[in-house]
Amino acid sequence: MLITGIGRLVTNDHELGPGLLGVVDGAAVVVDGDRVAWVGRSNAVPEAAGTRRLDVGGRCVLPGFVDAHTHLVFAGHRAAEFEARMAGATYDGGGITDTVERTRAASTEELTEGARRLAREALRSGTTTLEAKSGYGLTTHDERRLLDVAAAVESTDTPAIVRTFLGAHVVPLEFAGDADAYLQVVTGEMLDACAPLAQWCDVFCEPSVFDEPDARRVLTAGRERGLGLRLHANQLAHGPGAQLAAELGAASADHLTHLDDRDITALAERAVVATLLPAAEFSTRSPYAPARRLLDAGVEVALATDCNPGTSYTTSMPFVITLACTQLGLSPDEAVRAATVGGAAALRLYDAGRIAPGSRADLVVLDAPQPVHLAYRPGVDLINSVVRAGRVVHRKERRG
Amino acid sequence: MLITGIGRLVTNDHELGPGLLGVVDGAAVVVDGDRVAWVGRSNAVPEAAGTRRLDVGGRCVLPGFVDAHTHLVFAGHRAAEFEARMAGATYDGGGITDTVERTRAASTEELTEGARRLAREALRSGTTTLEAKSGYGLTTHDERRLLDVAAAVESTDTPAIVRTFLGAHVVPLEFAGDADAYLQVVTGEMLDACAPLAQWCDVFCEPSVFDEPDARRVLTAGRERGLGLRLHANQLAHGPGAQLAAELGAASADHLTHLDDRDITALAERAVVATLLPAAEFSTRSPYAPARRLLDAGVEVALATDCNPGTSYTTSMPFVITLACTQLGLSPDEAVRAATVGGAAALRLYDAGRIAPGSRADLVVLDAPQPVHLAYRPGVDLINSVVRAGRVVHRKERRG
Repeated sequence: MLITGIGRLVTNDHELGPGLLGVVDGAAVVVDGDRVAWVGRSNAVPEAAGTRRLDVGGRCVLPGFVDAHTHLVFAGHRAAEFEARMAGATYDGGGITDTVERTRAASTEELTEGARRLAREALRSGTTTLEAKSGYGLTTHDERRLLDVAAAVESTDTPAIVRTFLGAHVVPLEFAGDADAYLQVVTGEMLDACAPLAQWCDVFCEPSVFDEPDARRVLTAGRERGLGLRLHANQLAHGPGAQLAAELGAASADHLTHLDDRDITALAERAVVATLLPAAEFSTRSPYAPARRLLDAGVEVALATDCNPGTSYTTSMPFVITLACTQLGLSPDEAVRAATVGGAAALRLYDAGRIAPGSRADLVVLDAPQPVHLAYRPGVDLINSVVRAGRVVHRKERRG
Repeated sequence: MLITGIGRLVTNDHELGPGLLGVVDGAAVVVDGDRVAWVGRSNAVPEAAGTRRLDVGGRCVLPGFVDAHTHLVFAGHRAAEFEARMAGATYDGGGITDTVERTRAASTEELTEGARRLAREALRSGTTTLEAKSGYGLTTHDERRLLDVAAAVESTDTPAIVRTFLGAHVVPLEFAGDADAYLQVVTGEMLDACAPLAQWCDVFCEPSVFDEPDARRVLTAGRERGLGLRLHANQLAHGPGAQLAAELGAASADHLTHLDDRDITALAERAVVATLLPAAEFSTRSPYAPARRLLDAGVEVALATDCNPGTSYTTSMPFVITLACTQLGLSPDEAVRAATVGGAAALRLYDAGRIAPGSRADLVVLDAPQPVHLAYRPGVDLINSVVRAGRVVHRKERRG
């Protein structure tokens, strides 16, 4: 397939174009199967570029978004908790147990249907790769069921789905007061059952939930099963999470609202990606992560939705980009980079988040001339069409 | 047409249902032509309810949004100004003259095409009535041209459009330093030419733009031509706008970022609607209006997008509702009310913003069970379909 008429192309590849985003104006892209075969100026397209053509009419094209942090699989919603929070209640993570209860009670069909609906919604807003965590099951049976659902949901009509085991999300009620006993299950039979279904091991490392020794125990056990490491760190208060991520060589530390200079230095030195989740801060009216300090220290930043029914019930990466610019102080280019190749770095996917020869043919066509419009036009659906693995999988309805 | 299968219906009518939103669960609506003929429980639908049926499958239905403040007609965009602001520049209204220059230079076809695109975009996000101001022409010829365009754009594929004359938006460059001479034109030949095309007269009342005597002069002249009054007031600094709105009996005072208790009392006593524009504050990183103080003083609040290429390039009322809850402190019910019947009050449209016998058949069907999801699911397109004047004018594409 030959994609032509690209007004501005974001490649995220410095060899292909200038600037943070590797921009090529007046571009074309040749797709071969599910991969990008050629990128360049439209007046230099190779002869044998294929017969199928997609003319995007001068629009801006960028890599599909890589949403590196979601809790995709759950039952029910927590609109009442949201309303209470809008009326002044504060978030302490307590609502997670409500979702656990409803998720355990839900049928696998119900869970699959809900996750599929959200995954398709994410695709329509431009996400072509999406990380999905377990964490609302918290029994060996249910955690495994959630990862099975995440695997079953993936199709050509959804983003590619990367699975993460988060058995250590909270201590479930039946283990209240005995985190140690619960972690024995998590690091034993639960991980044995779940590791074959996941690529990553995560833990909610927070002084009030799982403190440093707990988190270390979970991550070490995950690593022993061959899983990559990532963690929820420094969200509700300053804690040991960021340091632990650096020490253990985690791919990503997520949230990072409360950081001191030592934490930032540690993340930079060990090349831990900082995955920031401003939509959660927005919906919980919490302080935002110190994104500028992270960037200025040379930390690679990713943006993700944190999609979950409690604190951030959104699948929209464009919304997250808007917040990153207006609230976190990222430039529009930095935000677009963090939402694409930044997310890919957080998942160690070196063929996603870029449009370059050999990369996945995952592209978003914007109803806009430049990527800055994603932040400049908040709340507006600018996703004209989405190409995933070389196929047009979404195209906006048009009339007249 | 009979609309059935409504899980939750927002009527905004206290005689039809309880609460701030007049909610009816398990509802049906009978539409006759472009009006609502009957509203009630689905098990009590009158016999002769018509043959056409729309089953909304248990979804939530609410009145179409009434966006009471937009600058719909202009040429070009100001993405570079947005980027500069994100990098630290502050907004002082100066960019308006850029848009004036480009708008004057644009063909009428170009202006119509741009305004139509935005109006359709607004419709797809649930807006069924939209106010559109002139104000980027600032010559008699161009202001009239903008109002002509606003009139020409309205169709069954756009919201109903209400037109406002805003010749006193800024002092154009050719009158720099001589606001008095410009206002002589505005209140003379410009109003003579424009009043027949508009329902409302507006003025940018701000100490640094048009101060109290200027604003009074414009509004008085507008009233003499039979126009209703509204004004941009107290946006950039505390000023006389809110008091002037109350004194002159304006329908609405808009922005209202900087208010003292006297201002709020005056607005309440004279029943001036406070039209709040949080998307502008969001995109300019300005303080938000004191919405809670206004509501607590009994002022009727409307929410609007302020759609314009400088400070708020969005047409999305759902996005504004999200901001109203998380940033202005409105409850989700208050925000939904302000975005529907509140906007209608700001435009003195007593048959819009409600779903009740005799009201316009303007309805939005949500992909959600409750209206709170509009705030709870930020950035997500929850607009399943839109009915305007009794016709289904938008329906979300679905696959599979």
